[in-house]
Formats: sequence, structure tokens, C-alpha cells
Amino acid sequence: MNYQQIINEIYEILKNEENIGQTASYIPELAKVNPDNFGIHLSTIDNKEFGVGNWRDKFSIQSISKVFSLSFAYKILGDRIWERVGVEPSGNSFNSLIQLETDKGIPRNPFLNGGAMVICDMLISELENAKEGFLTFIRSLTSNSQINYCNAVINSEKSVGYRNIALCNFIKSYGNIKNDPNDVLDFYFTICSLEMSCQDLSNSFLFLVNDDFKTSENNRVLSLSQAKRVNAIMQTCGFYDESGEFSFKVGLPGKSGVGGGIIAIHPNKYCISVWSPKLNEKGNSYRGMRFLELFTTKTASSIF
Amino acid sequence: MNYQQIINEIYEILKNEENIGQTASYIPELAKVNPDNFGIHLSTIDNKEFGVGNWRDKFSIQSISKVFSLSFAYKILGDRIWERVGVEPSGNSFNSLIQLETDKGIPRNPFLNGGAMVICDMLISELENAKEGFLTFIRSLTSNSQINYCNAVINSEKSVGYRNIALCNFIKSYGNIKNDPNDVLDFYFTICSLEMSCQDLSNSFLFLVNDDFKTSENNRVLSLSQAKRVNAIMQTCGFYDESGEFSFKVGLPGKSGVGGGIIAIHPNKYCISVWSPKLNEKGNSYRGMRFLELFTTKTASSIF
Amino acid sequence: MNYQQIINEIYEILKNEENIGQTASYIPELAKVNPDNFGIHLSTIDNKEFGVGNWRDKFSIQSISKVFSLSFAYKILGDRIWERVGVEPSGNSFNSLIQLETDKGIPRNPFLNGGAMVICDMLISELENAKEGFLTFIRSLTSNSQINYCNAVINSEKSVGYRNIALCNFIKSYGNIKNDPNDVLDFYFTICSLEMSCQDLSNSFLFLVNDDFKTSENNRVLSLSQAKRVNAIMQTCGFYDESGEFSFKVGLPGKSGVGGGIIAIHPNKYCISVWSPKLNEKGNSYRGMRFLELFTTKTASSIF
Amino acid sequence: MNYQQIINEIYEILKNEENIGQTASYIPELAKVNPDNFGIHLSTIDNKEFGVGNWRDKFSIQSISKVFSLSFAYKILGDRIWERVGVEPSGNSFNSLIQLETDKGIPRNPFLNGGAMVICDMLISELENAKEGFLTFIRSLTSNSQINYCNAVINSEKSVGYRNIALCNFIKSYGNIKNDPNDVLDFYFTICSLEMSCQDLSNSFLFLVNDDFKTSENNRVLSLSQAKRVNAIMQTCGFYDESGEFSFKVGLPGKSGVGGGIIAIHPNKYCISVWSPKLNEKGNSYRGMRFLELFTTKTASSIF
Repeated sequence: MNYQQIINEIYEILKNEENIGQTASYIPELAKVNPDNFGIHLSTIDNKEFGVGNWRDKFSIQSISKVFSLSFAYKILGDRIWERVGVEPSGNSFNSLIQLETDKGIPRNPFLNGGAMVICDMLISELENAKEGFLTFIRSLTSNSQINYCNAVINSEKSVGYRNIALCNFIKSYGNIKNDPNDVLDFYFTICSLEMSCQDLSNSFLFLVNDDFKTSENNRVLSLSQAKRVNAIMQTCGFYDESGEFSFKVGLPGKSGVGGGIIAIHPNKYCISVWSPKLNEKGNSYRGMRFLELFTTKTASSIF
Repeated sequence: MNYQQIINEIYEILKNEENIGQTASYIPELAKVNPDNFGIHLSTIDNKEFGVGNWRDKFSIQSISKVFSLSFAYKILGDRIWERVGVEPSGNSFNSLIQLETDKGIPRNPFLNGGAMVICDMLISELENAKEGFLTFIRSLTSNSQINYCNAVINSEKSVGYRNIALCNFIKSYGNIKNDPNDVLDFYFTICSLEMSCQDLSNSFLFLVNDDFKTSENNRVLSLSQAKRVNAIMQTCGFYDESGEFSFKVGLPGKSGVGGGIIAIHPNKYCISVWSPKLNEKGNSYRGMRFLELFTTKTASSIF
Repeated sequence: MNYQQIINEIYEILKNEENIGQTASYIPELAKVNPDNFGIHLSTIDNKEFGVGNWRDKFSIQSISKVFSLSFAYKILGDRIWERVGVEPSGNSFNSLIQLETDKGIPRNPFLNGGAMVICDMLISELENAKEGFLTFIRSLTSNSQINYCNAVINSEKSVGYRNIALCNFIKSYGNIKNDPNDVLDFYFTICSLEMSCQDLSNSFLFLVNDDFKTSENNRVLSLSQAKRVNAIMQTCGFYDESGEFSFKVGLPGKSGVGGGIIAIHPNKYCISVWSPKLNEKGNSYRGMRFLELFTTKTASSIF
Repeated sequence: MNYQQIINEIYEILKNEENIGQTASYIPELAKVNPDNFGIHLSTIDNKEFGVGNWRDKFSIQSISKVFSLSFAYKILGDRIWERVGVEPSGNSFNSLIQLETDKGIPRNPFLNGGAMVICDMLISELENAKEGFLTFIRSLTSNSQINYCNAVINSEKSVGYRNIALCNFIKSYGNIKNDPNDVLDFYFTICSLEMSCQDLSNSFLFLVNDDFKTSENNRVLSLSQAKRVNAIMQTCGFYDESGEFSFKVGLPGKSGVGGGIIAIHPNKYCISVWSPKLNEKGNSYRGMRFLELFTTKTASSIF
């Protein structure tokens, strides 16, 4: 399989198609990004790397960080995390409060904003300094010590994050947030602000591809069973109310962020990341979805 | 991989555990089934077969028939079916009317009762005699001409099927049922009444395992892409509001029925079916779920 | 108070204003009615009568019949009726199934379609011949033996009544309908088809105005306390999700029907009925609402 | 009508019955109140006053303040307030977020917590110093310059008010809160903390009884039409999801608070207030509801 040639080809096809959608305008800082950025990077289980376009440029990974935070909490706490967050798809959009009311404050899954906040709350309780600890974890996945948070994005989110403030306090009202909601929100906005390149992303998620992956300190991140379960949750819940569509068209577990990034995992084969800031109406990268659909078709590498 | 030994072992383990749950009591005819029946059958891509327990006994496949009806409609109509039914998980139970009201009569996916009714409606419109045509299709998958509907179960369902009558008329009120709701319900109850053994099931679903599968008339059932998509929908929607849980624990696309049957697909490897009538509170076979969880763990064959 | 002069004046004002809205098109038979019909009739506690426009013409009273059926069941069964139907406003439209699912088949109030069906179910269980018994009851309220059902409307409703079939079977699935849903629907459509004039209506509802009202057989209809309670339910629930608006603008208990009729009660003073077939988007008579708003303002006779 | 004798009699009856329910435990400060307090005060249109029990003792009026804030905003802004808040009953509990999501941030009515916050937001925008201005308004209604806010209750609410913080930020996310949510919440908690006696309350609400009511500065509070409309909203929405029940049993417009107070209005006759801290499961004073039901029965003074 000549991955470089395939990603080049698809890149050219999509570069010549209209780039549909809107960048995430509700976060002022994200609205400033050049909507024509388009990068792809693929890392294989045998540590080969392939990139095209803006694959070296950093962008705001936003909700892709929820896979990191879930994995980090899962590593630390094990199956206890499932007492406070579910594994079911929600059928609603990422920031809906309706199901939380029905479910008495237990978010359906850790990739909904509310679920990610509960995970953040766990990490705050477990770590001496959650922000530092989380950053150390991320850096250990890629050996890239340059990865960092972006204060401008954090402040930008805080200035307009009323829905997220509502979500966090709503869950707190059910007792499923243990720390001060303001601290949880601060940590949540912070990890969403992580800036990484496509290369950083596809390298850092190899722990979900490769059973033998070790961090820079030579530690396993998750057990085999845990890694499979994180992939399974991505498959059913990674794209909000477009999770079925992604599963249907792409056929890989994956996760998107409103910064326009998407990562997708082929267990035992590769991790691929795509970045293109224009989002479809469900909030997922338009070109990212298209790229991955063409990619799994051309490489016949859907897991189904 | 010695499949026979593995399924024997798990069968013995579970036989010695308590058999938890209730048989489907709302359908009088199903409530009569011996709750201790327990059968497993596995068919591999290279046509090897392995069975244990009551794998030759016929049972009511109920909602597993929705995979057949979806596949049959997909074969006949292609992607036009997605204009009238979605591919998203619902986050609600199998017979909820709430989302239908929000979504104006478009069921979220073809494995919800409402979605299956819309598929039935399509088949009625396309086939001269839907019941006969459907039965011919099923028989062509297994070369077993003994497979048939069960009138006692059909009548049993009709006598208590108020929720399903409500669902079908509700969708009709939005215009997404074209035929008389009574005809659609009759066909829907009929295909749910199909009686098949574990062996019948795992053989008949090989078309979702094997790209080169041909029916007894030497026809392809679905294109490669279509088969992958059916598997993807099973992965995200096959177990109602326990789809995430099944994906999380078992890691295979699958589908359950209230008769206590479950089928699961490992693309390019095998189809496995389990039958045990006692259901957990979500309406899925208790021992079926347990068996498959242990099976994919022991065989390390989750797709994730 | 010169009622005749006041209703004439308002009639003239509205005749010269644009007649906004649509007749109920979903029932073919109702769509045939001349949309410019406009009648008003007022009956006072001391048996004076005042009419203007088409006040002698019969029309389909539709949901106004729900006040009759509630009153009849209340008379027969007393407070036992409240075990199977509530008295709370729903906040949803008249044929929503969402709350029924949350409330496990107990309709919020007897003026929602589902609530009226439960009341119909009670009457069927209590009366030897529900249709005859109900008609006798209605005729006894007005001494008008010409009042009758309209078969064309019944058939028209049945031919398109999928939502109502859904509602009735949905409630049956929760066990809160005791008879065959088809019988309940038949009776429900029948009483909705009653044809009465404005004069018939305002005379027949005097039992909610006058504590000493007696039927033609010299019987009380409801106790004082019961009559007050029916009025209270009309106040909070009589206009579906426009009940607050009607209460806010008109300030009287009342009930509307999709035939374009509205009745309103001023306890101890009068009953007024208005008929104009064009409906606003909430399904209530546009001119009827306007007329009553002007009428209670001019007569300073809101109960608030 | 010997009001004193009647309220004494009912007071004795209820004193001898079991006092059912729980005081509002979620606000620590309110949980400290003696649950056996029980006071009634009635003020007539002709300025007669009748009291029994703890009618002189101050208590936290909580949501009863929403009638004051609605009236004050209505007085200042007129019908413009209805662009940002509805007049329909909600069918849900007082702090539900579900309908707000469906209705895009427009609360159903001004007596839901969210609706009251939108009213508070209007007052903050209109008044130089909202807290002072509001207190001046309240004092002008009763000529009682001792009425004041309670800082302990404000702080108590703030310390646990996560659901209200969620509500306010949720509405802000839809743009229907113009000021800083923290300022709106501070004002909202402040007016809820008002401490008044039964006497204060029934005197201060005479402006909804008496068309000719003037404040201590000789001003009208509301126009006749406005006062009627406030009463109408109380009738349909004053008791959250028990509004129909109160209307059904008591038959007067009224408003309750979790401090155990209830006020009820008979237009052109009287205002009555009851205080008893134990709440039924809907959050309304158990003895308050019972008292008023007996009172309107004995005095035959339901408005229906």
C-alpha cells in the first residue's frame, strides 16, 4: 500500500473541490484561522509517517482532547470511571442538556461536553496539578515537549462559554461534579486549547493502534482491553449526532474537534489525522469527513 | 484457533453460572419457551462450522430479522432507502416515540421498530408478494428451504402489539409509511416471527462476513461497500440503548432479538450466533451478551 | 349591559378586518366549510339570548365535545375519573405523544386528544350504548332533539386519523384504555362530529354558568363543586398550548374546536359561543379569539 | 361573611391534622425554620384585615417575589416584556431546562426560575440600582419600610444554586440575558430572599385585587388590564406543574414559594396569604394548599 501516493491523490481531489461549511465562529479565536488550511498525516503501527499539506502546522485540537483525557483518567482510575459516565451514544448534539436531566446528571458518554467535564473533574481530584500533569502526559505520548496550551483560546472560550458553564453547573446540581465548577471549566477549556499538528496527533494516538506502544518513559498507556474500549466508544460516540454517519461512511473509530481536526484509528494498522477548519452543520470538518471516506474506500481499510 | 474448544469452554462456564433475567413476557407465545435453552453456532469465512448446546433448535429470531429486511431493501433500492430512515443511534429504547416526533417521522435507524416498519413499507411497495419474496430471499441465503414464519407468534404479537400499532400509525401520520399501516404491521410481525436455529443464522449472515459470498442462485447479496455499511449500522445501533455497551464489551457489530438470539459479525473472519431466552433489563439476551464478551476476549477478536 | 349592541359592534369591526388563518385542512370534510361563516351567540344566567351573524347555522363542534364528555363522565363516575387522567396543562400541542411516554400513559388533562380518549373509554365501559347515551345527554342539555352526529365527518376523520390511532394504541399499550382501541376511536370520532349551532352551544353549556341549571328531565348535571372544577380545567387547559394566551387575553374559561368554534363561560353570568372557521397556527379560531378578547374588554367581564 | 371566624375554624382543623411534607432542605438557611409555623392573613378590597396564627412573623417569600418582579417590569416596560418571556404553562417543574432548549432560550412564563431571571435582567437594564429600586417598589406597596432582603438566605442560595447558575447561563447562551449572568443571579437570589409577614404579603398584593389601588406615593401600580393579566398568568402558571391542581381545588389565581408561603387573589374581593413551611412533593406548602381549598369552599369564593 503506497500511503503517500494515496493521500496525495485524495488531497489533490479535494483541493480542487469547493470547500464547504463554516469555521467555528462561536469561539472568536478560532474564527481567525485561515479556512483553507488543509493537512493530513498518517502514522503506521511500524512507525512510518506520511504527510501532505499543512501537516506540520499546529491548530486547536478542541474536542479531540477528550480522547486524551478519557484515556488518562482510564489509566489512573480504571473501570471506576464508568460509575460516573456512560458509554452510550446520545442521539443528541454535543451540548444538549435534555438527556442530562433525564439521566440525573450522568452524561451518556465521555465525548459529550458534559461527559468530558466529569472526566476533567476526576483528573482534578486525582492529580496534584491537573494542568501540568495532563501536559506531561500528552508530551510523553509524542516526545514532543513543545506541545502546549493556548491562553488566547482559553480566554476566548471563557468569554462566550455560557452553554458550557450551564452544563457544568447542571451536572454539579446532580452531584456528579465534585470540585468547584469554575475549576472544572477552567481545566476543561485548558485541555481543549491544546495546540498540536496533524503529525503530533497521529503519533500521539498510536497507543490506540499498537498494543505494544510505550510512552517516552517506557510505560504502557492503556491495557489492550482498555484501548479496545476507547476505540469502541469513539466508534459509537465520536462524532456527536453524526457518529452513525461517520461509522457508516468511514468505518473507523474516530474523533473530531471544532478546530477542524479529525483523528481516526485503524487498530493494528495506523492512525490518521486530518485538519481542515470548515465545519459541516453537525460541527465536524467537512473536508476531514470527505478525506477519510475516500481514504478508507481507496485503501479498503474500513474495520467493517 | 480451536473455536470448538473455546465455545465449549465458555458454554460450560456460563452453564454453571446463574441464568439471570426474564424471557420476553409481553408476547405470550415467547413466554412459553424453555428459559434454559442455550445454543451457540459459529460459521467461518472458509465455511467451517462449530456448535454447542441447542444450536440446532429453531427459535423466534424477532428483531434479528431487521438485518435481513434492511439488507434486502438495500439490495433492491440502494442508497434511496436513506431518504426515509437514518443511520444514527437513537439513545432511546427500541419503541420510543419521542424522537419520531422531534424528527418528523424519520426513524433514526433501521433497527428501531419504527425504522424497520419503514423498511417493511418499502419492501411491500417493491415486491409483488412481500411475505413470499422475503422468505425466498432468506432461504436463498442458507439453502435451507425449511425456514418459515410462525403463525402462532404472529398472532401472539398482533394481540398485544399496541405500541407497534401506535408507532406505525404515528409514522404514517408524517407520511413516511406509504401503504396501509395494517398491511405494514402484518408484514412486520410476520418477518419477526421467522424461526431459525443458531446454525441457520450464522450461515445466513456470512454475506456480511465474506466479500465473495453468493446465494444459492449464485447472486451477490450486497456490494462490498453496502455490506460494510450494514455492519457499521449494527455496530452503532444493533442493541437499542445498549449498543454502546455491546460495542464496549464485545467489540463486534451485532444484532439481538427478544427471542433471546444474538448474532455478531467479525468481517472477514466469522459470524457467531447465540441463543438464550432470558433477557437483561435492556431486552438483550443475558447469556448471549456474556458469551460474546468472553468469546472476543478469549479469541482476541474484537474489531477494535 | 346591552349585550346585543356590544356583540353587533364587535361583529362589525371584525367583519371589516382581514380574516386571517386557515380552515382545518387535515379533515377533508371540514375543509369544505365556507371560511367566511361568522356567528356569535350569548346566553345569560337569566335565560336571555343574543345572537349575530351565522348563529343559527350548525357546524362541527369537534374538541368542544370534550367538555361534554368530561362532564358526562364526571357526572357518572365522580372523582374516580382523576385516577386515569390529570388536570395539569401540558405545555405541548394537542396530539403530542411525548408527555404520554414520560407519564406512562396517563394523559395530562381531559382536553388533550389522549385524555379525551380515556374519558371515551370510561363512557363505553359505563354505558350500554355509548353513542346513544351520549346523544341523549347532549339533547337533554338544550331540549333540542335535532342535534346529531355527522357521518361524513366521522368517516373523513377516520380516513386520515393516523395520529389519533397512534395515540389511542399508545395509551392502550400502557393499559389506560380498557376497551378495544378501535371502539374507543370510533366513539371519539363520533362525538367530535356533533353538529351544533352557536345557539345550541351557549344554551347547552349553561350548566357551567348557573348553579341551579336543570336538564330537560329536571336533573342537575354536575354539583356546584364539579362545575367549578370543569371551568378551572378549561381555564388552564382549554386551548392546548395557547391556553395561557387565551387566559391572558380573554380571561375566561373556554374551549375551542378545529371546526372554528369556541365557547367561553363567565360563571354566574353567561356562556358565549363564537364560530369562525379560519384557525391560527395553534389551531384555534382566529376571529373567535379576537372576538372574545374584545368582548371581555368592552364588557369588563374577565374573571380576573 | 365572617372571615375571622372562617379562618379561625380552618386554622383549628388543620392544626389538629398531621402536618405532612418537608421543609425546603436544599437551601440550608430555609431548613432551619420551625416547620410548625402556621399563619394566615386576609386583606379585603375595603381594607379590612383578618389574621390567625403566625401572621405577623416574617419569612422568606422566595418565588412569591416573582409576582412583584413581573409586576414591576410590566409597569416599567409594558407589553415589551412579552417579547422575551411567554405566558404559557410549562407542564414541567420550575427549574427544568428541557423546554428552554426546545424554545431557544425563551422561558415559557415569568414564574419559572428562568422566566424570572429574564425579568430580573430587564430590571437591571432599566434601573440605576436594581436592588434599591426594587426594595423601594415593594415598600411603596405596603408603606412598611421595614421590609428587607436577608443576606444569610442570599448566601445560602448562592452556595448551592448550581441549577440556577446553569439556567441563567443557558438562557444567556441563547442571548436572552443581556447582562452578566452573575449579576442577574445575584439580583435574582436577592429578591427571592425578601422577608415579609403574611400581613405584609396580603396588603402588598391588593394592587391585584383593587382597580383603584394606589401606592404610598399615590401611583397606580398596573393598569386594570395589566393587573388582570398578571392574575391570569398566576392562574395558569403560579404553581409550577401543580398549577392545574391548585386551579382545580382552590379556584383562585395564586403563587407559592419554597419558604412555605402562598398568596391567592380574589379579584375585587380579597388577597389571602398563608404560611406553613412543610412542602408537598411538588414544592408547594402542604397546609397552604389545604387551607385555601377549604377556604374557597367554605366561602364559596372560587372565581369559577
